[in-house]
Amino acid sequence: MATPVRIVEVGPRDGLQNEPRTVTPAQRVALVEALVASGLTTVEAGSFVSPKWVPQMAGSDAVLRGLPARDGIRYPVLVPNLKGMEAAVAAGAREVALFVAASESFSRRNINCSIGESFERALPVMEMAKAHGIVVRGYVSCVLGCPYEGEVALPAVASVAERLVGIGCSEVSLGDTIGVGTPARARRMVEAVAKAVPIDRLAIHFHDTRGQALANVLACLEAGISVIDSAAGGLGGCPYAAGASGNLATEDLLYMLDGLGVDTGVDLDRLLDAVAFIAHGLGRPPRSKVYAALRGDRGEGQSGR
Amino acid sequence: MATPVRIVEVGPRDGLQNEPRTVTPAQRVALVEALVASGLTTVEAGSFVSPKWVPQMAGSDAVLRGLPARDGIRYPVLVPNLKGMEAAVAAGAREVALFVAASESFSRRNINCSIGESFERALPVMEMAKAHGIVVRGYVSCVLGCPYEGEVALPAVASVAERLVGIGCSEVSLGDTIGVGTPARARRMVEAVAKAVPIDRLAIHFHDTRGQALANVLACLEAGISVIDSAAGGLGGCPYAAGASGNLATEDLLYMLDGLGVDTGVDLDRLLDAVAFIAHGLGRPPRSKVYAALRGDRGEGQSGR
Repeated sequence: MATPVRIVEVGPRDGLQNEPRTVTPAQRVALVEALVASGLTTVEAGSFVSPKWVPQMAGSDAVLRGLPARDGIRYPVLVPNLKGMEAAVAAGAREVALFVAASESFSRRNINCSIGESFERALPVMEMAKAHGIVVRGYVSCVLGCPYEGEVALPAVASVAERLVGIGCSEVSLGDTIGVGTPARARRMVEAVAKAVPIDRLAIHFHDTRGQALANVLACLEAGISVIDSAAGGLGGCPYAAGASGNLATEDLLYMLDGLGVDTGVDLDRLLDAVAFIAHGLGRPPRSKVYAALRGDRGEGQSGR
Repeated sequence: MATPVRIVEVGPRDGLQNEPRTVTPAQRVALVEALVASGLTTVEAGSFVSPKWVPQMAGSDAVLRGLPARDGIRYPVLVPNLKGMEAAVAAGAREVALFVAASESFSRRNINCSIGESFERALPVMEMAKAHGIVVRGYVSCVLGCPYEGEVALPAVASVAERLVGIGCSEVSLGDTIGVGTPARARRMVEAVAKAVPIDRLAIHFHDTRGQALANVLACLEAGISVIDSAAGGLGGCPYAAGASGNLATEDLLYMLDGLGVDTGVDLDRLLDAVAFIAHGLGRPPRSKVYAALRGDRGEGQSGR
C-alpha cells in the first residue's frame, strides 16, 4: 500500500447539496480555498443543476469564477445535461462530472430516464467537452445496491463504467449511493470493474450510512484503488435515496491513510481548519469522529493524542 | 474469512460504566437478557469495582444473581483486585476479567501501580479463580497508543499478553483504549502478539474515537483474529483517557460480518431491539450508524434498505 492516493474532495458539492442550510457562493469559494490550502488537489466546486431542484448549488457559476486558476488544482463541477454543460463552460469550467446509475429503477426514479437514455443525454455533453478540451469524470451510482432493486449485478456496474470510459470519461467513480456495501463485496465489485476499465482510472465513493465506508476503502485499497472520494466534515448524503447519510469524512479517511503510510499530500490540521470553517457557516458542529477527537475537546485542557 | 467469529458484548459493562445516566440492576439484567436473545453468547455483565469510583456498576452482584445459568452462555465480570474477586465469587461469577496496561505511564496514572505490580495484584485473583474453577480473561489496555507516552512498543504489548496467559488467563483481549490505531498498525500488533500467544486465544477491542474501529477489525480478521469485543449501541468509552469515545457498535460490526459471510450466530434485528431498549433506559437515541439506517427513519414511510 505504498502507492500515493489522490483524494477527490466532494464536500462543497455532494456534501453541501444535501445540507438543510444553504451557504453563499462566497462561503463556498472560501471553503474550496481552505480545502486547497490543506493540500487537496481535486475539489468538486459545484453543480450546474436547476436551483429549483437543488437550491444549495445556486450560484455555482459564481463559485467557479471566484476560484483562481492554479497549476495542478482541479475544480470539477457536476453537469446533469447539455444545458448544465453550457453554463459550466460559460463559467470557465475545465473539468466536469456526470452521473449514470448502475440500476435501471434508480435511473428511472431519480432522473426519469433509462440507463441507455442517460448515455444518449451524455453524448452532446461529451462532444462539447471535447471541443473545449474539458476533462470529464463519470460517476456510477448504486454500485453496491439500489433502494428499489436491492443488490445490483456486478456485470451491470462494469458495463456502465466501461461505457463511460468508451464515450470519453477520463476517470470513473464507483458510488455506493445508499451506503449498503461491506468490504468483501466492495472489493469484488472493484475487481469486476477493473477487468473492463484500468484500475488507475477508477475511483471509489462511499457513503457512511451503515458505518462501513472506511472498512470498504481499506478493502478497495488492497485491490489497487488509488483515487478516493470523500467530503470534509462528513458533509452531505444523497437526496434521492431514503436512509442515505453523509459521505465518508475526509479527515477520518486521511487519518487512516496517514496511519497506513499512504502519501496524499494533505495536512490533517489544515483540513480540520476547513471543516471548522464550514461547520460554522452551517451553524452546526462537524460530524466526523476525527474532528471530535482532535478538536472537539479543546478548551477542556487536555487531549487524548 | 470463513472462520466463525465470537462477538464479546461489552456494552453492559464497558459501555454503561461510561454513560452519564445510571441504569438500575434490573434494567441491566433485562439488557443482558435481550442481548443473549439476539444470539450473543458472551456478555460482560458488570464490574466489581468500588461504586465510589464507578457508580454506574453498583449492584453488579444483583445483576449476576438475576441472570439465569444457561448452557454455552457466559457472563464475565470485571474484577480490579482480590476484594472485587471475592465479591464476584460470592455473587456466583463463573468468568471474570482483569486489566493490565501495556504502558507504564497509563498503568501508574490509571490504577496507581506499575505493570509489574498489577501482575502481583493479579496473582491472588488467579489463585482464587483456579480454586473455584473460574475462567479468567485478561485485558491489555493501550495496545496501539497511550495518552501519556504516545506509541507503545509492540514487544511490550506481546510481553504483557504472554504474561497474562502465563498466569492462567484463557483469553487475552487487546484494547486500543484511546482509539488511536489504524489498520496496518493494528494488524502488525496482532501479528506481533500472535508470536507469543496462539491467535485463537486473542481478542481485539477497539474504541471508535477516530472512526477507525471497523477498518481495524477488518485488518485483524485478515490476520486471523476470531474473537471481537464490541458494545451494542456503541455505548461507553474509557473514563480515564481524555478524548476516548464509545466502543465499536456491535450492530455496525455485525452488519460487516454478515456482509463478509462470517458466521456469528447473532440476529441483527433482535440486536437492534436490545439497542432500542437500553437507549430508552438511558433517555437518548442510539449512536450507531446501522441503528440510524435501519430503525432511525421508521415512521417516515420508507427506508433505504
